[in-house]
Amino acid sequence: MLRIDGCIDELRKAVREIRNGGAGIGLVPTMGYLHEGHLSLVRKSRAENTATIVSIFVNPTQFGPNEDFDAYPRDLERDTRLLEKEGVDVAFCPAPGDLYTADHSTFVTEEAVSRDLCGASRPGHFRGVCTIVLKLFNIVGPDRAYFGEKDFQQLQVIRRMVRDLNLPVQIRGCPIVREPDGLALSSRNVYLSASERQAALALNLSLKKAREQFCSGEKSAAVLVESVRKELEKEETLRVEYVELRDAADLSLTSKVEKPVVLALAVRVGKTRLIDNTILNEVSS
Amino acid sequence: MLRIDGCIDELRKAVREIRNGGAGIGLVPTMGYLHEGHLSLVRKSRAENTATIVSIFVNPTQFGPNEDFDAYPRDLERDTRLLEKEGVDVAFCPAPGDLYTADHSTFVTEEAVSRDLCGASRPGHFRGVCTIVLKLFNIVGPDRAYFGEKDFQQLQVIRRMVRDLNLPVQIRGCPIVREPDGLALSSRNVYLSASERQAALALNLSLKKAREQFCSGEKSAAVLVESVRKELEKEETLRVEYVELRDAADLSLTSKVEKPVVLALAVRVGKTRLIDNTILNEVSS
Repeated sequence: MLRIDGCIDELRKAVREIRNGGAGIGLVPTMGYLHEGHLSLVRKSRAENTATIVSIFVNPTQFGPNEDFDAYPRDLERDTRLLEKEGVDVAFCPAPGDLYTADHSTFVTEEAVSRDLCGASRPGHFRGVCTIVLKLFNIVGPDRAYFGEKDFQQLQVIRRMVRDLNLPVQIRGCPIVREPDGLALSSRNVYLSASERQAALALNLSLKKAREQFCSGEKSAAVLVESVRKELEKEETLRVEYVELRDAADLSLTSKVEKPVVLALAVRVGKTRLIDNTILNEVSS
Repeated sequence: MLRIDGCIDELRKAVREIRNGGAGIGLVPTMGYLHEGHLSLVRKSRAENTATIVSIFVNPTQFGPNEDFDAYPRDLERDTRLLEKEGVDVAFCPAPGDLYTADHSTFVTEEAVSRDLCGASRPGHFRGVCTIVLKLFNIVGPDRAYFGEKDFQQLQVIRRMVRDLNLPVQIRGCPIVREPDGLALSSRNVYLSASERQAALALNLSLKKAREQFCSGEKSAAVLVESVRKELEKEETLRVEYVELRDAADLSLTSKVEKPVVLALAVRVGKTRLIDNTILNEVSS
């Protein structure tokens, strides 16, 4: 595996050489501190492309001023070993100064899919996400790019951006990977104390319960949302930020499960913000 | 010449075929109603690339609600003949519906270079420009793209966008083309009555006079701007929108001509808005 620690020209040169071999290129953009969720994206990319490039970059522009940019966990050496073992072709590990000049002034905003849910509680977050993802697409020029469904709104915002800006890349979403006890994998799980970790199980449990209700015939958004909220509120250490049922494609409001929908939630467990979701009424593919 | 009237897939296919021949591709984005200024861009692209693609698209998102989108002059058949004669390889002539879905929600904003001058008088204009230019870049994938220096702020905003978003395209600016009497070519000149056309000569004359003062040693921005303004105000039918002297690279305020600067103006002649500029203290290349 080639590891490139910041030089964009060096990365472009590596990509050109890969391209000259006629390869399809898969890109897995990450913020590092890799877990099995990330590795599932890597494996899917490896299966679908002749070369896989993983970027590791904790992107400052997607963190708010009071968010955890400085505290966000980092372990580049461990990440590199994991990617090496997975057979990744190139790990691209830039520093903020490699990707942003001091007078950077261009941003990509998505104004519909990104507006509510995490967009409402994290102003500027998706502007930062769209901007960095577009930059990485322009640097790497991948044929396919891989994103986890845990960040479901992010996935759909990126799909919308790709459609609206006519980007020549295929976006591939990959299912949430969970711990054996159901907690969705997240680099931020490392922040949790033992008791917070225990309380956080309510996220998946509440979604599972609502899914069962849906499978038993419940189609009302209000009833399903209320069911999730009640389950979450049983845990006194959780503070609910939102629970919403939305159209899965454009995240618009929906009162009844008719098309595919996402049941999504964000909570705070102590100082840690966690998200989770489940898709209901999915079109089987 | 291949003319493609809107189908993006068809254009991509044509570009792929050109690419397979190993060609360098030049893109000249235009709003049509072509004049010698546009054709100078085409000729430069033809000289520097093995294939030249010209887009003709009056982009609705860069016009304000009270601007001249509907009235903007169009003559696609004449444009096509001109491009054919110039040896252009592909003319891409989409309709708004080919490039924008009804729920288009992603935009590119540049927040420094685009802020003042035309950006101040035309809110949203450069957002529309950046968005459509990025879309065209993503559709065509050119090696080089050509823009006239008459729209000097546009040129520098696009350069900034390309730098900030790591776009793999080289931006080439081309000098203003003028009528024999000095009026800068613009598709909007067609709006002018005979007397307005006469009054509009003051734009170039005022800039020429300031240039002479600069060449005689005048370095003060205030003096040069005031000189232009006075010349313009001699013409009673002109209303000055702005006269500014700015750093040529980032359009920041500057009180003295030390680095290369642009002396830029916008005026209204009757209902028609015209712009012109001149670069002072240019680094000879």
